[in-house]
Amino acid sequence: MPMRLKSVDKNFEQQFATLLSQKREVSVDVDNAVRDIIADIRARGDAALVDLTLKFDRLDLRKSGIAVTAAEIEAAVRECSKETLDALHFAHDRIADHHKRQLPSDDRYRDAAGVELGHRWTAVESAGLYVPGGLASYPSSVLMNAVPAKVAGVPRIVMVVPSPGGELNPLVLAAAKIAGITEIYRIGGAQAVAALAYGTETIRPVVKIVGPGNAYVAAAKRQVFGIVGIDSIAGPSEVLVIADGHNDPDCIASDLIAQAEHDTAAQSILMTDDENFAASVEQAVARQLQTLPRGNIAGESWNAFGATIVLKSLDEAPALADRVAAEHLEIATENAEDLSKRIRNAGAIFIGHVTPEVIGDYVSGSNHVLPTARSARFSSGLGVLDFMKRTSILKLDEAALAALGPAAMTLARAEGLEGHRRSVEVRLAKTT
Amino acid sequence: MPMRLKSVDKNFEQQFATLLSQKREVSVDVDNAVRDIIADIRARGDAALVDLTLKFDRLDLRKSGIAVTAAEIEAAVRECSKETLDALHFAHDRIADHHKRQLPSDDRYRDAAGVELGHRWTAVESAGLYVPGGLASYPSSVLMNAVPAKVAGVPRIVMVVPSPGGELNPLVLAAAKIAGITEIYRIGGAQAVAALAYGTETIRPVVKIVGPGNAYVAAAKRQVFGIVGIDSIAGPSEVLVIADGHNDPDCIASDLIAQAEHDTAAQSILMTDDENFAASVEQAVARQLQTLPRGNIAGESWNAFGATIVLKSLDEAPALADRVAAEHLEIATENAEDLSKRIRNAGAIFIGHVTPEVIGDYVSGSNHVLPTARSARFSSGLGVLDFMKRTSILKLDEAALAALGPAAMTLARAEGLEGHRRSVEVRLAKTT
Repeated sequence: MPMRLKSVDKNFEQQFATLLSQKREVSVDVDNAVRDIIADIRARGDAALVDLTLKFDRLDLRKSGIAVTAAEIEAAVRECSKETLDALHFAHDRIADHHKRQLPSDDRYRDAAGVELGHRWTAVESAGLYVPGGLASYPSSVLMNAVPAKVAGVPRIVMVVPSPGGELNPLVLAAAKIAGITEIYRIGGAQAVAALAYGTETIRPVVKIVGPGNAYVAAAKRQVFGIVGIDSIAGPSEVLVIADGHNDPDCIASDLIAQAEHDTAAQSILMTDDENFAASVEQAVARQLQTLPRGNIAGESWNAFGATIVLKSLDEAPALADRVAAEHLEIATENAEDLSKRIRNAGAIFIGHVTPEVIGDYVSGSNHVLPTARSARFSSGLGVLDFMKRTSILKLDEAALAALGPAAMTLARAEGLEGHRRSVEVRLAKTT
Repeated sequence: MPMRLKSVDKNFEQQFATLLSQKREVSVDVDNAVRDIIADIRARGDAALVDLTLKFDRLDLRKSGIAVTAAEIEAAVRECSKETLDALHFAHDRIADHHKRQLPSDDRYRDAAGVELGHRWTAVESAGLYVPGGLASYPSSVLMNAVPAKVAGVPRIVMVVPSPGGELNPLVLAAAKIAGITEIYRIGGAQAVAALAYGTETIRPVVKIVGPGNAYVAAAKRQVFGIVGIDSIAGPSEVLVIADGHNDPDCIASDLIAQAEHDTAAQSILMTDDENFAASVEQAVARQLQTLPRGNIAGESWNAFGATIVLKSLDEAPALADRVAAEHLEIATENAEDLSKRIRNAGAIFIGHVTPEVIGDYVSGSNHVLPTARSARFSSGLGVLDFMKRTSILKLDEAALAALGPAAMTLARAEGLEGHRRSVEVRLAKTT
């Protein structure tokens, strides 16, 4: 059974702190193994890729080739139903439309001292997208990672996806095609991350690597960070639902379950000011789990990490929600809009009684790659800016140099950097 | 002597690649030592801080206190000259003015399907600023790290600065005061990073840690990444100057030297289409080094990592500059503005004959915390966005749910997530 907390209880603060500090993932220390894999790829390139893929994916790249061919991609598309392809196109177009609004503006201006300042945004020259293999190989994630890169204007986007035993999910290839990705390699794990970061004979290196993966992939991304840019390290998914009694318990229960079915380490929390409603939702969850294909997974997550939190008043919700800093925050209350404005920490907020989080997973247009494990306190969902960088611009004329130079010289000397001082001094001497 | 490369030489590509792959930093493996320090701080809090500070900084925090007092800050300000304080205020106000322009806009709109989408930016709730002790304890860096956090609206900004043997740079405390930082602790190294990330009895944890430091600080930031947000890991500074023959060799030489005097691992590169000019600059560097207080450091950097690259034409410069991806790029040519537009990778660009990079270090208003070690290929200088995060917003009404629901259900089933499908289905059933 999930935890039931009440804010009026004496030990509430202690129970809530315990809930927040729960460790949902077994942290496996794979750092040394990953270090060896990266060193091997750097030393032996393709040959190491072949050996490691044979070992971990039971696939002989010498026979299959490292790159997925255009013909394979076409064949995969033919395997998909028209209904699914249509839905992927629908999702793709909505994601593209929404992300175009994230394109940043350049800035350039001359200030009162005559100094020209500004910045310019440019796309990274290449990006690598890691797509997990097997069960967690989701076409929706391909779109969510690839489309922002495309919208940013990244000229080269590379996808890697492991193919255990030679199997590739045709939907993943179809999604790649819809997103316009043509350079795809059938590799995975730390070896794929290393190949993207350092390159091999076949694979040119990229400058940014994004996408979710297992402990090896996460460790590899952490280790190559600095050589390339990475996105955040994804943890198990989570939802916090703030709901008043004016909801159908079955609807709220289904949202909690949708999150829980991802993974036994997922977390679903309900916060409500109506204890009877909390009980009804718990009953609805129990009922729905019985007929769900992934009911065992969802049940395990719900029992281990699920919680219902009964508040005296919904006014208590924002401060508590900020401490949860949920990846997904559903606010299904009468005053949802007002309540949402009082929240600082959340990856995404789903407002009102008819906004199930699942819509955001697929077709709303907003990104489903969101900060997990309380990292919404300091990071954002994936977006166009993750594939761009800002170059600052400075331009002085002689008057501007004369206006700024003396203060710069004073500070350079105060910091003991006489060479800095002189570089201003020599120009002032030549120009005045 | 620095390397001299010519783009017309047969082995140019090989030499240029060698220049790019030079390792300028000895990478010390301090990961295990840092892991122990972090574990110690987590286990013993303040007591560990006391022990580690006694060991590494020869300072007894039980006598000095962990926090720097308001009286100490006032005393430090009184030690500074009026000229320096005025220059710090001048720099502060320009940095604040410039960074205010980086404040992002929220977005909210209803699309053709009736779906309300948007995002909202909020400041992180707290930020920790690491300031190195000793020689590299720069007041300008305090301003460059603190002001963007202030402008972003971070309610709590904490500074840590080691105080070896009890010494604190009064200018650093003065800069903190000018920036409005009042919570300051006299600690450094991995132990300070751990205290900021996990908290101790005295120090409440923060959610984001920024600022430069030595190998221990860098390793600690890397290890706590995920628990808190971090900025990029700073490496030795670097400048690439693209200059035509219409420059005073002494001016360009002084810019190369200003970079080189930071650190023996710094790098200064000149690119020009005029071989005689290159020779004149080399001579001017040699001459200026002789009278420079930090001439030995600058000379060591220049001889080991400096380079002059003679091009057949300045048209070759953008492609090469993109491979260097310099932290600082000075373009001192007649067509500097045009050339700058052809550059993708640079932390900051300084345009024209009278824009020495040093102005950007102190008083231009733009940030001097910029991506080093070729990371300008994928990252940006420090700015207001580093202290904010974006929450996405979604709001549907019944019509919008009806418009999006079917495609979401199709994709959920295609991904084998029946619980996802049902969370949409149950709402569609209730609302239609």
